[in-house]
Amino acid sequence: MSRIYNFSAGPSVLPEEVLKTAASEMLEYRDSGMSVMEMSHRSKVYISIFEDAMHKLREVMNIPETYHVLFLQGGASTQFSMIPMNLMVKNGRADYVVTGSWAEKACKEGGRFGEARIAASSKDVNFSRIPKQNELDLDPKADYLHICENNTIFGTAFPYIPEAGNVPLVADFSSCILSKPVDVSRYGLIYAGAQKNMGPAGLTVVIVREDLVGKTQERTPTMLDYMTHVKADSMYNTPPTYGAYILGLVLDWIIGLGGVEAMAKINREKASLLYDYLDESTLFTCPVEKGDRSLMNITFVTGKEDLDAKFVADAKKQGFENLKGHRSVGGMRASIYNAMPTAGVKALVEFMREFERNN
Amino acid sequence: MSRIYNFSAGPSVLPEEVLKTAASEMLEYRDSGMSVMEMSHRSKVYISIFEDAMHKLREVMNIPETYHVLFLQGGASTQFSMIPMNLMVKNGRADYVVTGSWAEKACKEGGRFGEARIAASSKDVNFSRIPKQNELDLDPKADYLHICENNTIFGTAFPYIPEAGNVPLVADFSSCILSKPVDVSRYGLIYAGAQKNMGPAGLTVVIVREDLVGKTQERTPTMLDYMTHVKADSMYNTPPTYGAYILGLVLDWIIGLGGVEAMAKINREKASLLYDYLDESTLFTCPVEKGDRSLMNITFVTGKEDLDAKFVADAKKQGFENLKGHRSVGGMRASIYNAMPTAGVKALVEFMREFERNN
Repeated sequence: MSRIYNFSAGPSVLPEEVLKTAASEMLEYRDSGMSVMEMSHRSKVYISIFEDAMHKLREVMNIPETYHVLFLQGGASTQFSMIPMNLMVKNGRADYVVTGSWAEKACKEGGRFGEARIAASSKDVNFSRIPKQNELDLDPKADYLHICENNTIFGTAFPYIPEAGNVPLVADFSSCILSKPVDVSRYGLIYAGAQKNMGPAGLTVVIVREDLVGKTQERTPTMLDYMTHVKADSMYNTPPTYGAYILGLVLDWIIGLGGVEAMAKINREKASLLYDYLDESTLFTCPVEKGDRSLMNITFVTGKEDLDAKFVADAKKQGFENLKGHRSVGGMRASIYNAMPTAGVKALVEFMREFERNN
Repeated sequence: MSRIYNFSAGPSVLPEEVLKTAASEMLEYRDSGMSVMEMSHRSKVYISIFEDAMHKLREVMNIPETYHVLFLQGGASTQFSMIPMNLMVKNGRADYVVTGSWAEKACKEGGRFGEARIAASSKDVNFSRIPKQNELDLDPKADYLHICENNTIFGTAFPYIPEAGNVPLVADFSSCILSKPVDVSRYGLIYAGAQKNMGPAGLTVVIVREDLVGKTQERTPTMLDYMTHVKADSMYNTPPTYGAYILGLVLDWIIGLGGVEAMAKINREKASLLYDYLDESTLFTCPVEKGDRSLMNITFVTGKEDLDAKFVADAKKQGFENLKGHRSVGGMRASIYNAMPTAGVKALVEFMREFERNN
C-alpha cells in the first residue's frame, strides 16, 4: 500500500515533505551524531531547534512582542483548567460562548474554579451555527470571554472576532491555528493542541498577553502556572522536544508556501471545492449555516444512516480514510487541515459525485 | 559525521534499531497508508499500537493486575503536584526522603498541598549517599512516603526498598525504569518521564495501585485526577501518540534482549567497567558511597575544575558527548541508560585511561 488520503479530525495528516525530512534525520540530525529525540533539551543543538520553532511561529503568526509564546504539554484539556486558574483571579467569573462539545467542556471545567457563565449557546440547533455578536450576553466584569474559534466536531468557525471591550478574549485555536492570518492583538490568550495543524500530539502552544500572566488562584500546581514557563522559556522541565522539532519543519513548509496568507487562500479554495459540491448535491447536505462554516472540518449527511455507513465503507475501500462523522452529529466529516493536499479534496469530491450517481 | 556516543542525562540515547524502525515507518506504518503521527488516536490501527505498548509494559515489568498503568503528559514535574492532589487526601500529610534536587522539588511542591515532612535527607553530604532504612524518621499517619529511586544528578540509587508499613511507597523511577526487575507490589505508585529509558520526552508513565485512585483534593483539575485517565484508558484526551509508539518499539527491543533481568545484567556489567576503573584511577574519583551508586548515572571528578573542563572538551572531540556534570555536583557525569551500548562505555574507559596517562 502507499499513503492514502487521511481525513482524520486529529491527529491528522502532515505534509509529506515534513515526514520525509523527519525520516531522513531520524538517526542523525545534521552533523549532531544523534536523533533529535535523543538530544538533551539543554544542549546547544537542541536549544537552537526549539528557539527556531518558537521564532518562526512568532514570525508566521505575526505575534506582537507583548505576547509570550509557550510550548507546553497536556493538550487543550489541560488549558481548560489552566486558564481559569491563571486568569479567573480578579472577579472570579468568566463568560463562555458554547458552540460545541469542546467549548462546553471548557465551560464546565471553568465552573470548577469560579463562576463560568454561558454568554451564548447554539446547543438548541445542535451547534449548527455560531451566535452573532449581538446575541452575546456579555458580563463587563468577566475575567475573560472564552470561545472555541473552530469547532472540530460540528464543522463551524467564528466568522468574526467577538468584541468584549476590556474583557480579554481567550480562544481555543486547536483546529484552525496556522490556517489563516490572525490579528493576535485582538486576543488575550490563544491556545492550541499541536495535533491538527502543527505536528504530533503532546505539544500545546499558548500565546498569552504579558499582563495576563503573574497571578494565580491558590494551590495552582507549579506546572499549571503560566509564569513558571514564561520564566524558564518553556524549559522549566523537559519539553516535548520532538514535537517542537516537527512544528519547526511544519512552519518551514508553511513559509515555503508563502505563509498563512497563502495557506488561507489554499484552504478557502479546498473548502469551496467541497462546499460548492455539497450545495448543489441532491444526495448530500451540509448541516451548517453558510456564514459559519469551517474551512477545516466539513460535515455532511445523506439523511439516511445506512447510506452514510455505506458511503464511509465505500470511501475507505477507495483510500479515503477517517470520514465517519463524530457520533454527536452523525453522517460524515472531512477534516481538510493545511496538510491535506488539494488533490485529496478533488479526489473526494469526484468520489462523492460517483457515489451520488450510483445511490 | 555518524552517530556518536551520547552520555546525556535525558533526553538520551535510544536503541539504534528503534530509530531505524521509526525512520522506515515514518511515511507509512505497515499498510496503514499513514505515519503513526498522523493517526487518529481513536482509530483501530492506533489503538492497537497504544494497547500493545501498555500490554508489553505490564508484561516486561510484571505489573500486578491490581495496578493501573497510565500514559500521561507533563513529565515528573506534573506528578509532583498530581501525587499530593490525589493521594494526600486522608491525613493531609506525607513523608519525603530527600536524596537530590528532584526529590527536593517533589517535596517542596508536595508542601503546597498539605504537610510534606522530610523523613530523611542526605543534603548535608551533597547527596552523595542514600539514607538507610534505620535513618528514616517515618510518620505512620503519612498518606504516602515519597522517594526518588535513582538520582540522575548525583549518581545515587536506592539499594533497598524502604519499608513503611501500611504507608504507600511512591517512587520517581524516571531515570531507572526498565533498567532492572522491580517488585511493583512493594510500591503504591511508580512514575517516570519517558525520556531516559522509554522513549521521547512528553510521555509520562504512572503505575498506581487501584485503591489509591478515586479521591482527590478540592479543585483538582480534571486532567490531574488519576481517575479521569483510569476511566478513559489513558485516552480522555489525545495522548502523546508518537511517544507511546516509540515506547512500544523500545519494549520490543528489551524483550528481544531477554527482558529486564537480562537488561539489569548488562547494566551491571556496563557500570562495573566504569566504577572499577574509577576506583583504581589516581586521577578520577567517584564521589558516591559504594553501596549507593547508580547503574544509570555515574558521576566522577578529577578534583580540579580546569582539568574537568579539559576532559569534557577533549572527550567531545573524540565523539563522547554530554559528559559535563550537573552544576550542583560539578565534574563529569556519564549517563549510561539501557540504550548506551557496552562498546560506548568501553570506549569511554579507554579514553579516560589515556587521558589519565597524559594528564
